[in-house]
Amino acid sequence: MSARCICFFSDYGYEDDFVGTCHAVVKRLEPAVEIIDVTHGLPPQNVLSGAFVLRNTLPYMPDRAVHLAVVDPGVGGPRRAVALRSAGDRIFVGPDNGLLMLAIAADGGVAEAVELTNQEWWLSPVSVTFHGRDIFASAAARFAAGRPLPEAGRHIDPDTLVHVDLPRPRAVPDGLDVPAVLIDRYGNVALNLNAEQLQAARLGERIELVCGGERYLAQVASAFTAVRRSDIVVLIDSYGQVAVCVNEGSAEDVLTLEVGDMVGLRRLPSVD
Amino acid sequence: MSARCICFFSDYGYEDDFVGTCHAVVKRLEPAVEIIDVTHGLPPQNVLSGAFVLRNTLPYMPDRAVHLAVVDPGVGGPRRAVALRSAGDRIFVGPDNGLLMLAIAADGGVAEAVELTNQEWWLSPVSVTFHGRDIFASAAARFAAGRPLPEAGRHIDPDTLVHVDLPRPRAVPDGLDVPAVLIDRYGNVALNLNAEQLQAARLGERIELVCGGERYLAQVASAFTAVRRSDIVVLIDSYGQVAVCVNEGSAEDVLTLEVGDMVGLRRLPSVD
Amino acid sequence: MSARCICFFSDYGYEDDFVGTCHAVVKRLEPAVEIIDVTHGLPPQNVLSGAFVLRNTLPYMPDRAVHLAVVDPGVGGPRRAVALRSAGDRIFVGPDNGLLMLAIAADGGVAEAVELTNQEWWLSPVSVTFHGRDIFASAAARFAAGRPLPEAGRHIDPDTLVHVDLPRPRAVPDGLDVPAVLIDRYGNVALNLNAEQLQAARLGERIELVCGGERYLAQVASAFTAVRRSDIVVLIDSYGQVAVCVNEGSAEDVLTLEVGDMVGLRRLPSVD
Repeated sequence: MSARCICFFSDYGYEDDFVGTCHAVVKRLEPAVEIIDVTHGLPPQNVLSGAFVLRNTLPYMPDRAVHLAVVDPGVGGPRRAVALRSAGDRIFVGPDNGLLMLAIAADGGVAEAVELTNQEWWLSPVSVTFHGRDIFASAAARFAAGRPLPEAGRHIDPDTLVHVDLPRPRAVPDGLDVPAVLIDRYGNVALNLNAEQLQAARLGERIELVCGGERYLAQVASAFTAVRRSDIVVLIDSYGQVAVCVNEGSAEDVLTLEVGDMVGLRRLPSVD
Repeated sequence: MSARCICFFSDYGYEDDFVGTCHAVVKRLEPAVEIIDVTHGLPPQNVLSGAFVLRNTLPYMPDRAVHLAVVDPGVGGPRRAVALRSAGDRIFVGPDNGLLMLAIAADGGVAEAVELTNQEWWLSPVSVTFHGRDIFASAAARFAAGRPLPEAGRHIDPDTLVHVDLPRPRAVPDGLDVPAVLIDRYGNVALNLNAEQLQAARLGERIELVCGGERYLAQVASAFTAVRRSDIVVLIDSYGQVAVCVNEGSAEDVLTLEVGDMVGLRRLPSVD
Repeated sequence: MSARCICFFSDYGYEDDFVGTCHAVVKRLEPAVEIIDVTHGLPPQNVLSGAFVLRNTLPYMPDRAVHLAVVDPGVGGPRRAVALRSAGDRIFVGPDNGLLMLAIAADGGVAEAVELTNQEWWLSPVSVTFHGRDIFASAAARFAAGRPLPEAGRHIDPDTLVHVDLPRPRAVPDGLDVPAVLIDRYGNVALNLNAEQLQAARLGERIELVCGGERYLAQVASAFTAVRRSDIVVLIDSYGQVAVCVNEGSAEDVLTLEVGDMVGLRRLPSVD
């Protein structure tokens, strides 16, 4: 069976050598393994946003990939380092803090789970702060080269894995309350809501948004070009999620939104 | 014939997963194809600057490369998605908004042009906002693997391709008026003027720059080190273009310049 | 003997095409050579910080790599362009300004040194400002493909190579004075001091830091989690260096530190 490629996600940024040193660790062990840097701009320390990006990008990743993902505010503490194989035969490597769980659920759920306890696979010495380099990258390299999960450590019960605490859309009398889950560099704010859920709520084409006690008029449209400059628009983004956007502007700034905030979508009273 | 490599240019930046997801789309289709990320820091939505970077870097790119380029303010609108083969046997993939046209002219002109109308090559569904992923990357992958242009869609008349509207240097009685076309991270401002044109204008070693009604003294020199700190210097940059720079400073800031501004280069009256 | 890979370090950043064009130069010459972008976020023009990053990351890089490194404030001036082979059979390519010297010392010292004087290896024309592209990248590509050092130019005496002027830790009556050598994106400040040196100084677990005339209380600990939020902590970072950090904050900002500053570590008077 051919080698798997590594799809690498992190919040390491590009200023330091963190990403490049992880690459070197992989290549030192397995020169033939290929790495795709999906993104290293994940919101720092934000496990929920990272989990969303892993899930959203999943359909575009090569089959049988090793998903190496590091957003790890608990590094050096008691959180476990894990490798999970999905029913879809992908392997997910990272901290047991929920980061991997939305993507693996979207790939059929956990078929096998191990804690990375085999210290022969770790770099030596293991630092307190850089497990991406010392534990995760070297494990990902070996999995990509075909080594099976049980070589990396002891089996664990998938039911013990930590899940992200993701607030779900909530129906209210005149609409929906939905959490913001991801903000991109343009200030577009993705909500935990998909196109079907939005349509089922029958809110109409002009709605009211409620954020932090303030109310805003917004239009539901299929593209930015459907609204005027600086108008607020609710649309389906390129990953199929409902997003709040401002045409040629930043919804993050205009509506003062952060990941985790609840956004109210309200039906306007009909005029007649 | 061996595979072509993909030279990837965009204004996607590095904060989000846009670049990495396009990589994944290519690797999913054609694992053996290699991608060079030439830059993803092109000035956002600025087709003219992007077109310049594609042209400037052309001589350094591998032969027979597929140039995948996305600066696409009209995405989701009526602009066409195209693939162009140059007389020099390079393939250019991107929006039909002029972005590709300076580079292809520098490579001998358009030998063959198709619109990417073959929907079997598109990802499904196609988003409104992310044609880099859904249309361009998958086409680039297939071209890199050797598939011919006509499989991607219908032939179009090269004369119908959109060109960038690039103001040319204009001779005036005491010098030249030249548009600014590219500003780098240091604030160096490249002009649409090359070394020969500058020399032919016989402006001398000390000149006057006119920008936005203000006048500045500048020196024409071969290197920053020829002038003092904070002095304005006009030199030939590493791509052979005339550039306005400030030694240990930013010409963009000091002269308040933007891409598209006209810069006047004026001969100083001789002292005798 | 198999190809060497290139480990590429620079201060080019990611906004422009500098890094990508160097990649293209390598691939044009030697398509099979692999490049690891270790970092392009080195502190601009700061040779000392760059030298530290090269040395710190060395143990994680593949064996026999070609270390291509460009932090080059003297580009276009009289500084030499060099290639050095270490006793550990690594090859270092870059400017002769000290950038390569800490890493090569850590790899057994210089076994062979050449100046890159063979103009057939240069791109033509050679720019005044972009030797990364025109001289260094093409040399690195050829070395990676197995070409020996003497083909690149004339041998030079290793004793004539420029060294970085690195202040060493200095014992003072009540502690140590140590230079700051590297600041990461989180504002953690690495000192030119290792764990053994810190332990040998027997400063205790609570110490005083002296920076720019100001005095600060700090704790020596093994992890951030050992101190409260906003507390100053002195710990061993992931590269084995002593670093001054602020828990959930920036030591760079709190202590107003820059690379090159001396930091005093002082023993507190015992209470009894």
